[in-house]
Amino acid sequence: MTAQNTQVGIIGAGPAGLTLALLLKCRGIDSVILENRDRPYVESRVRAGLLEQNTVDLFRELGVADRLDREGLEHHGVYLSFNGVRNRVPFTELTGGRCITIYGQQEVVKDLIRANLDQGTLIHFEATATRIDGLETDSPMIHYEQNGEAHTLTCDFVAGCDGYHGIARKHLPEGSYNEFRIEYPFSWLGILAHAKPSSNELIYAYHERGFALHSLRSETVSRLYIQVANDDHIDNWTDEQIWDELELRLGDNNGFRLNRGEIFEKGITPMRSFMIDSMQYGRLFLAGDAAHIVPPTGGKGLNLAVADVKIMAGALTDYYETGQTTRLAAYTSDCLRRIWRVQDFSNTMTYLFHKQAKHGSFENQLQQAKFDYISRSTAMATTIAENYVGLKDV
Amino acid sequence: MTAQNTQVGIIGAGPAGLTLALLLKCRGIDSVILENRDRPYVESRVRAGLLEQNTVDLFRELGVADRLDREGLEHHGVYLSFNGVRNRVPFTELTGGRCITIYGQQEVVKDLIRANLDQGTLIHFEATATRIDGLETDSPMIHYEQNGEAHTLTCDFVAGCDGYHGIARKHLPEGSYNEFRIEYPFSWLGILAHAKPSSNELIYAYHERGFALHSLRSETVSRLYIQVANDDHIDNWTDEQIWDELELRLGDNNGFRLNRGEIFEKGITPMRSFMIDSMQYGRLFLAGDAAHIVPPTGGKGLNLAVADVKIMAGALTDYYETGQTTRLAAYTSDCLRRIWRVQDFSNTMTYLFHKQAKHGSFENQLQQAKFDYISRSTAMATTIAENYVGLKDV
Repeated sequence: MTAQNTQVGIIGAGPAGLTLALLLKCRGIDSVILENRDRPYVESRVRAGLLEQNTVDLFRELGVADRLDREGLEHHGVYLSFNGVRNRVPFTELTGGRCITIYGQQEVVKDLIRANLDQGTLIHFEATATRIDGLETDSPMIHYEQNGEAHTLTCDFVAGCDGYHGIARKHLPEGSYNEFRIEYPFSWLGILAHAKPSSNELIYAYHERGFALHSLRSETVSRLYIQVANDDHIDNWTDEQIWDELELRLGDNNGFRLNRGEIFEKGITPMRSFMIDSMQYGRLFLAGDAAHIVPPTGGKGLNLAVADVKIMAGALTDYYETGQTTRLAAYTSDCLRRIWRVQDFSNTMTYLFHKQAKHGSFENQLQQAKFDYISRSTAMATTIAENYVGLKDV
Repeated sequence: MTAQNTQVGIIGAGPAGLTLALLLKCRGIDSVILENRDRPYVESRVRAGLLEQNTVDLFRELGVADRLDREGLEHHGVYLSFNGVRNRVPFTELTGGRCITIYGQQEVVKDLIRANLDQGTLIHFEATATRIDGLETDSPMIHYEQNGEAHTLTCDFVAGCDGYHGIARKHLPEGSYNEFRIEYPFSWLGILAHAKPSSNELIYAYHERGFALHSLRSETVSRLYIQVANDDHIDNWTDEQIWDELELRLGDNNGFRLNRGEIFEKGITPMRSFMIDSMQYGRLFLAGDAAHIVPPTGGKGLNLAVADVKIMAGALTDYYETGQTTRLAAYTSDCLRRIWRVQDFSNTMTYLFHKQAKHGSFENQLQQAKFDYISRSTAMATTIAENYVGLKDV
C-alpha cells in the first residue's frame, strides 16, 4: 500500500482527464491521473474521430497539436443526402473560416499521454479507482487498486473523468441531481475498413431504408455506419451485405461509387442521450461521458468532454490563485448551457437523418422539408455549420 | 334555373378565390365566384390577421393595398418568451428589410370584394355549389343553388377555393391522392377584446402552464390566446380567469403588464395540420384550406392560400396565352414544396412553444435549449424571421 498526495486527483486517462492535467500543469497545478486500463489499450481504443474548431484551438494553445496539424484532415464542409439528393454545407464559408478536423481519438490520447509524461505528470495505468472518501472535506481521498494492492491518493479536488461506467458519478448523493435519458429506437452498425475514403468529406444520408454515414479515419481507412434495429446482431450481416447496404443508402443521383476494402472492425452500438443536471458534489467535479452521453450523430462526445475540462481548469485555477470558490460553485451551471445546446444539436441531427416514421408519412415529409430547407437557406445551413464546428461563445 | 358561362369558375369568396379572380382579370381572363354565405358574413368573419411580405407585395401589385397601407400595422420583429425570459427576433434586420403586416382577414376580404366588383367580376353570394360535372372534359359544369333554385356555371376550369369543409376536394377521385393529418394534443382558447395592445409586437410565450400568444387586430383591439386541453370548454373560463392566465403566461422578468378590456369574442379551436399531395384533377384545381390546414402558430394559413392562387393564375394564364398545359400539369408539384416548408415551419413553431412534455423533462430541456439557441445565434433567429415574413424563392 502506498499513500500519495497531489492537488487534483484525476480519475480516467481519456481525452477529458488528460486535457485537464495539461491545462492545470500550465497553470502550475499538479495532478495525478488514475487509469484502470493499460497504456496500449487506451492508446488504441477506437472512439470518436472528429475534432471541432474549439478543440483543435485548445490543443494548439496547449502545444500538443504538432502531429494533429500534420496528420489531421481538415474538412471544410459536409455532404447531406436525402434519398439520393446530395447537398454540401460549406463550414468554412458559413462560419468565418472555422472547420472540423478528422483525427482519431486514439491519436489524440497518444499525443496527450506523451505530453503529460513529458511534463512530469504521473499517470498510473491499470490503477482501478474503487472509492472516494471525504468529498465534503478539504482533502478527499481516492482509493485505488494496482497490481492487486490497495493504494490511496489524497488530493484537494477530484476530477471524475472516468466515463459513463466510472465510479465518480456514483459518488453524487442520491437526490442531488436529476437524470435524463433517451434510448433511441435504432442502433448503428459501424465498420472500420482498409478502404480509401469514397468522398473527401463526410456524407450524412437519409435513405428510406435508414440512415448511413460515410466517414473516415485517414486517407486509407474508412469509417462507415448504417442504421439498424436495436435487436439486430452483427452476425446477421456478412461483409458483402454491409457494403451493399452502404452503397445503396449513400448512393446519389450522380453515380456515387463506394470504395470497398477489408473490414477490420465491426459492431453494433445503441444510440442514447444521457444527462445529469448537477456535475459536482463537494470536492468532486465530473466531466465528459461521466456526466453526459450524446448520440454520435453530431460527432460531439470528445469535444464536449474537452469543453467541460476547460471550464473546470478555469475554476480550479481561480481557486488556487484567489482562494475564491465562486467559479467552482458555478461549474455545473457554466457547463450546462453548452451541454444542453449540444444535446439538442445531437438529438436534432439524429432525428433529421434517421428513418423513424413510415416513408411517405406526414412526419417523413416534414423531415424531407427540413432537409430541403437546409439546401435552400443560408441561415439554416449556417445553424448546422456553426454547431458542427463548435459554437464559440459557450 | 339559369345557365351561365365563364372561363374560370371559382368556388369560394375567401382570400384565395378573390385574389385568384383579380390575378386572372388583370391578365384578361374572366371568372365568376360562387360563395355560399352572404356578403356581410364573409366581410366580418374573423380569421387570420397576419400578412407576410409576399402577400402584401402581391396585394400592392394588384392595386388593392391602399387601405392596407393606411391601416395595416407593420411589425418589424416578434418577441419570443420562455418562462419569462423574453427575446426579440428583428425581422427587418435579419431579412434585408422584410416584415409582416397586421391586417384582419375580414379587412382583406372587404378590399378584395370591392376590387372584384369594381372590375366587373360577378360574385354570387348565398350560392351553394353542390356538384361539379365533367372535370375530365374541356367544359366542366358547377351546379349550385341560390334562393332555392338550381343553377349551373359552365367554365373551362374550376378553382376550388372553398375551404376545408368545401365540396371541391370531394371531387378528387379516391386513391388519386394521399391525405396527411396531425391532430395536436392541445387547443387554443382565443379571445378578441377591446383592449389596447400590451405590446407593440406579437409575443409568443412558452410557460410551464402552457403556450400563450399576444397578438392584436388594431390599435384598440387585442387578440390573445392560451393553450388549453383538447377537452376543455369555454364555459370553464370566466373572463377574469382568462386575463389572469394570460398575464401569468405572458409575464416576463421586467414587470410586463397586460392591458385588459371587454372580451367581445371567445372560443376554443383545436390545432391540426392537414395536407393532401395532389391538388388537382382534370380541370379542377384546389387552393388554400381546401387543400391544406396549418396550425395557426406560424400565421400562415391566409398567406399559403394566396401563394397557391398566384401559382394557379400563372398556370392558367400560360394556358390561355400558349395553349400549353405544362404548367397546369405541374400545379401540384409547383405548390407542394412551399406548402411542405410552411407545414414544417408551422409544426416546428407549434412544438417549440407549446407545453407537451413534463416541465423539466429531457424533451422540455431540449425545447429550452432550442429557445436559448434562437436568442444567441443570428443564423437560428434568421430561420425564424425569414419563414415568418415569407420565403422569397418558392
